[in-house]
Amino acid sequence: MTLLKTLAPAAALIALPTLGLAQDEGPVAGVNASTDTVFILNSLLFLVGGFLVFWMAAGFTMLEAGLVRTKNTTMQLTKNMGLFSIAAIAYYLVGYNLMYPLGDWSVGSDETGGYLGILFSTAKLEAVGIAADAADDYGYASTGSDFFFQLMFCATTASIVSGTLAERIKLWPFLIFVVVLTAFIYPIQASWKWGGGFLDSQWGFLDFAGSTVVHSVGGWAALMGAIILGPRIGKYAKDGKVNPILGANLPLATLGTFILWLGWFGFNGGSQLAMGTVGDVADVSRIFANTNTAAAGGAIAALILTQVMYGKVDLTMVLNGALAGLVSITAEPLTPTLGAATLIGAVGGVIVVLTVPLLDKLKIDDVVGAIPVHLFAGIWGTMAVLLTNSDATFMGQLVPIIIVGAFVVVVSAIVWFILKVTMGIRVSEEHEVTGLDTAELGMEAYPEFAKG
Amino acid sequence: MTLLKTLAPAAALIALPTLGLAQDEGPVAGVNASTDTVFILNSLLFLVGGFLVFWMAAGFTMLEAGLVRTKNTTMQLTKNMGLFSIAAIAYYLVGYNLMYPLGDWSVGSDETGGYLGILFSTAKLEAVGIAADAADDYGYASTGSDFFFQLMFCATTASIVSGTLAERIKLWPFLIFVVVLTAFIYPIQASWKWGGGFLDSQWGFLDFAGSTVVHSVGGWAALMGAIILGPRIGKYAKDGKVNPILGANLPLATLGTFILWLGWFGFNGGSQLAMGTVGDVADVSRIFANTNTAAAGGAIAALILTQVMYGKVDLTMVLNGALAGLVSITAEPLTPTLGAATLIGAVGGVIVVLTVPLLDKLKIDDVVGAIPVHLFAGIWGTMAVLLTNSDATFMGQLVPIIIVGAFVVVVSAIVWFILKVTMGIRVSEEHEVTGLDTAELGMEAYPEFAKG
Amino acid sequence: MTLLKTLAPAAALIALPTLGLAQDEGPVAGVNASTDTVFILNSLLFLVGGFLVFWMAAGFTMLEAGLVRTKNTTMQLTKNMGLFSIAAIAYYLVGYNLMYPLGDWSVGSDETGGYLGILFSTAKLEAVGIAADAADDYGYASTGSDFFFQLMFCATTASIVSGTLAERIKLWPFLIFVVVLTAFIYPIQASWKWGGGFLDSQWGFLDFAGSTVVHSVGGWAALMGAIILGPRIGKYAKDGKVNPILGANLPLATLGTFILWLGWFGFNGGSQLAMGTVGDVADVSRIFANTNTAAAGGAIAALILTQVMYGKVDLTMVLNGALAGLVSITAEPLTPTLGAATLIGAVGGVIVVLTVPLLDKLKIDDVVGAIPVHLFAGIWGTMAVLLTNSDATFMGQLVPIIIVGAFVVVVSAIVWFILKVTMGIRVSEEHEVTGLDTAELGMEAYPEFAKG
Repeated sequence: MTLLKTLAPAAALIALPTLGLAQDEGPVAGVNASTDTVFILNSLLFLVGGFLVFWMAAGFTMLEAGLVRTKNTTMQLTKNMGLFSIAAIAYYLVGYNLMYPLGDWSVGSDETGGYLGILFSTAKLEAVGIAADAADDYGYASTGSDFFFQLMFCATTASIVSGTLAERIKLWPFLIFVVVLTAFIYPIQASWKWGGGFLDSQWGFLDFAGSTVVHSVGGWAALMGAIILGPRIGKYAKDGKVNPILGANLPLATLGTFILWLGWFGFNGGSQLAMGTVGDVADVSRIFANTNTAAAGGAIAALILTQVMYGKVDLTMVLNGALAGLVSITAEPLTPTLGAATLIGAVGGVIVVLTVPLLDKLKIDDVVGAIPVHLFAGIWGTMAVLLTNSDATFMGQLVPIIIVGAFVVVVSAIVWFILKVTMGIRVSEEHEVTGLDTAELGMEAYPEFAKG
Repeated sequence: MTLLKTLAPAAALIALPTLGLAQDEGPVAGVNASTDTVFILNSLLFLVGGFLVFWMAAGFTMLEAGLVRTKNTTMQLTKNMGLFSIAAIAYYLVGYNLMYPLGDWSVGSDETGGYLGILFSTAKLEAVGIAADAADDYGYASTGSDFFFQLMFCATTASIVSGTLAERIKLWPFLIFVVVLTAFIYPIQASWKWGGGFLDSQWGFLDFAGSTVVHSVGGWAALMGAIILGPRIGKYAKDGKVNPILGANLPLATLGTFILWLGWFGFNGGSQLAMGTVGDVADVSRIFANTNTAAAGGAIAALILTQVMYGKVDLTMVLNGALAGLVSITAEPLTPTLGAATLIGAVGGVIVVLTVPLLDKLKIDDVVGAIPVHLFAGIWGTMAVLLTNSDATFMGQLVPIIIVGAFVVVVSAIVWFILKVTMGIRVSEEHEVTGLDTAELGMEAYPEFAKG
Repeated sequence: MTLLKTLAPAAALIALPTLGLAQDEGPVAGVNASTDTVFILNSLLFLVGGFLVFWMAAGFTMLEAGLVRTKNTTMQLTKNMGLFSIAAIAYYLVGYNLMYPLGDWSVGSDETGGYLGILFSTAKLEAVGIAADAADDYGYASTGSDFFFQLMFCATTASIVSGTLAERIKLWPFLIFVVVLTAFIYPIQASWKWGGGFLDSQWGFLDFAGSTVVHSVGGWAALMGAIILGPRIGKYAKDGKVNPILGANLPLATLGTFILWLGWFGFNGGSQLAMGTVGDVADVSRIFANTNTAAAGGAIAALILTQVMYGKVDLTMVLNGALAGLVSITAEPLTPTLGAATLIGAVGGVIVVLTVPLLDKLKIDDVVGAIPVHLFAGIWGTMAVLLTNSDATFMGQLVPIIIVGAFVVVVSAIVWFILKVTMGIRVSEEHEVTGLDTAELGMEAYPEFAKG
């Protein structure tokens, strides 16, 4: 009797969740999120993060379309629409599998058929309406959401290159380079860190969302392209004078910067790779806040520095300052305090203001400033991990930067060179002067607007 | 005694969820998401999907503003701002209830007061701070989120029409047509499939996110408008020559395409209508990935095809190719593999490149190419369901396409015709030549920029 | 024996959640969302809401860049990029802590070190990878997500000011005002309502998402700036005639409006501050739907009213009408029905159309119409709470409007005046005529486009 009395309330408690009837009678479910809920929330982070990073493709397009001259705008739009589409397909066909199953790839496992097997195995999504326990990675997130998210990082790398090489590179050689970059160069080096490769396992390299893995890679590829391609006609006078070539539409460039800033919440926040626990979502929140303040720091630094150095604020530097702040915080958006993140971003802004003229001295013509923003600030950001994350080591950061840089420099130089000697990468002088839009595409971006 | 020992741990387990104290002591909650969590996650999908589809209204606006001439740009902006606002109100006042309770509507149920009752019953949201078991659809999602999501689809249909008829249609007749389209034409035919009507129940029609229900409907309405309205002055010369009329601002058109691409993740992904289980969120992920690759396929197909056919890439075709890829995958974004989705999208891109000249041969003047993109690729996409979804039947796809087409053609032709004979739908020849902005609105879109 | 039989099924039920194995065997988890899930979902609402409100900064930038003249566009872009960055840092350094721990601040608690302590204590995020029970506010949401969300509201206030004062205010005095506004003015008055201060506790003031706390504050600060700064040269002729100064790029202004409309779903929806229960997510859904229809109501009202009053539709009024609809519903986006929300928004649209000329009569030069939109419609929206929320009282709404208004008017007038007499706030007449871009920044927004 006594025993039965003791058990009665317990039985009632047990029954409740099963009956599903006790909505307003206090908490019934447990404390942790359920296994399914964690899976859903992690996948949701990838989907929302992924569409935000997708949006960055539009940001790069607007930024670049605003910073080139009107006579080359249609071409720049075409390149950006093309490069994203190519990245989407190349990463699906080759890149994704090349990037992730590095273990298998290295040993040429039977399952995948070795090197060639990987090359010919395309990304595969989970089956439709999959049962939970049949999910590829039950307990974590859906494969489709992961693929969607990672694809956008690969495409970002290609977006970085297009801005630097604007106004003089031919369309098709550029697009072929994008194929190689997104199918091979990006995925192979990304596997070294994010695919569990040697930069991760042997060097303890820390690069949270890709200051090195994404941004510096785009920057190095752009740098080699810029060197091999040469500067635009008229940019550098024989007497050493630099002739500024003005962007034709600054509202577009500003819009592009805002788009990139917005997309970066997905870029860095999504790189937490999980939000199914209290700790994970609090980390994603930290990352959002730090990413924002780093961008603000970069913009303010450029605002003040251009005022001090030149006596007037330079909007394009402010825009690139914000972007450099974003790149700088990308290697470690989690561990800094808001103050540290602001300063890390501010240093990025300073780097841009100081190195844009430096590139010009070297006669490396970077139309939109992508090399200072993505390469120089990317290196800074990667080293800055040392300031706030005690797991980072100096050599563990520096050596991978060099390894990745050397790999991308060598391979992309080879690819650019092959393209140069085979099909040629530069439009004719006449076409460059006329403008790529009329000469190569027969379509002006602003056909009704008179030239000033 | 033995019994008590056995029960002791059980009692402890029972107690934990109730006490809510065991955060770090292993999983406590169950495997499935709780009933409330499912409700929240499904509603969240509608909200996020809905704001992404809202964003498509901006995408259409930018696309169209970029593809018309400067002299008609203010008018195009005004039409788009107006049509979305009208759709929002008309769908709330009439459309939503007309679309969903089809059963009731058909039989004229007492509850709703029959046909007239439906017409005068407006959409109603759930009460504020509703208790879970009082929710309209507890176990699924909030009514408000569903209304918000569905409203955006209705508005999309109207956005499709405005592009085709640009540069010559009067503002008010166009807006009146939008009232009819969004209050009656769209909801009635949508109820046949999505309201559980005969296309769904009798024909087994499959149209996941609306290649037919949304895109072809907009396309048919645009087609009838274009025929009844006639082409722009100067578009078709008497000798049969087609005079291309160039879009004035291609960066805007490209921005619009990127906005639409982004919004389409909500359009197709949200149409899964649920993400509260592992299977559902994995499906949403598949849809995101497939939607993206179909757009890429369409863009690349148009890129290559215009190069091959015309010896140079045509940016506006690439933009429309991406959009056609998106329309093509909309009828079935779930079942295809990534490869199939890419190809389905690519065929959409090919269709656009081949049919834009066809319309010109028929002297049907479609300013932005909306008919090839939304109608032709919409039909293709609807038939392409047969390729990857074994539940689809040939007649089950074809006949609904025809039924919906016939309905929209007849009703919209009648409405356009009535508008033509009563208030007139076309601006005067003088106003058309001057431009609608100055002549009809007295406000230029770019008042300071000189004409080239 | 009997007892054991009774207990057996109970024991099985108990075991399931612990073992985590029963995915497809019916609901196992409870009805309510788990404590962690609620925390995650609430934080997620702040993150998604926050990035949407961030996006509004881009919306204001595009709106203003489209409504100023080309000669002042670079300056307007620079101001907007600068003000957001300043707001981000000022709110982190001072504003956030000033706004929230009002209780502590008022009494000068030991913990914070009193007034000065608050001033020198910056916002702090939760520790990295925090354990659930160590979260600042376990059971609610992460501090980082809350900070991120609230920051965006502070920045919005500053964005409102920049439009009104365009085309004649100097860059640096404006940015210094932004520092004061975002570090002190906004947070102090916001603490009176949202920090649990006297407007909340003593007056029962209801302002859901900030028609008064955000929008009227920006509006009052803009009004005082406009009065002290004076109108643009040439705007008001000596004979009392008003010379309209046209916006140079209406597609940009329209894009800005769409961006703001999109961002407002985060602004109002996120202000529910929770979505971890059925009731909360259903409320967020209501808010999304009401916010949308209020914007539509405002746009349609302006569309019809300008047609009736002036015989032609005025696009800039339609844009501002939509925005006024959004501001109007912001004080109470939850309790209205869709019909009431539409009408509340429509009244906002009417207010804009009627008061824009009124300001001109008073020779208050508001370049983009921010005062009618944010101040007048903000007051209307705050009073309109009385129409649908029975908790609101007439004096409880009116008096806080006046108190907040008086505070902002006095303090911002003092700040503007100090700036005026110290460094000067207005560019020289010569620079204003030349245009701020060339004269102050040396950088044109559209350098290649000829002036018409």
